[in-house]
Amino acid sequence: MTIAASIGIAAAFLTTVSFVPQVFRVMRTRDTHAISLWMYLLFSTGLALWLVYGLMLGLWPVIIANSVTLLLSLIVICFKVRSPKRPAQG
Amino acid sequence: MTIAASIGIAAAFLTTVSFVPQVFRVMRTRDTHAISLWMYLLFSTGLALWLVYGLMLGLWPVIIANSVTLLLSLIVICFKVRSPKRPAQG
Repeated sequence: MTIAASIGIAAAFLTTVSFVPQVFRVMRTRDTHAISLWMYLLFSTGLALWLVYGLMLGLWPVIIANSVTLLLSLIVICFKVRSPKRPAQG
Repeated sequence: MTIAASIGIAAAFLTTVSFVPQVFRVMRTRDTHAISLWMYLLFSTGLALWLVYGLMLGLWPVIIANSVTLLLSLIVICFKVRSPKRPAQG
């Protein structure tokens, strides 16, 4: 494997697993106030399109990485839409 | 341009710009309590590696998309580390 390919795999791994601590945080605290719903809606739509792109071209790393991130992103959205609203601070 | 390429461009655009509403939200409210610092640290490291990958292979779309997202992600980290801590809720 080339150095570039190794770096690409490490990059894909990190950007995918990075959402795990965010999911754990909202599960633990149930606090989603600071989280932008628009961010997660746009991000999830983008991930769904990456998934379609991967499926069309048969790119398994793209399919796997984006499926996992999409699942994590949708979990954050579920907590966000179910959390009670409170006034913005500051 | 193929349909797959168009979908890929739309996907890259959405996953990049999705962080703009999150940056605006933390700038407006100064509230970062629900945001996971670990998520943004891992995500930014991954984006930096994508940037290296793009630079090594001369992939301009990868370089541009990841530079923009990395900048937005670092802004969120700056607000997060500068915000006063408060106890976790619930």
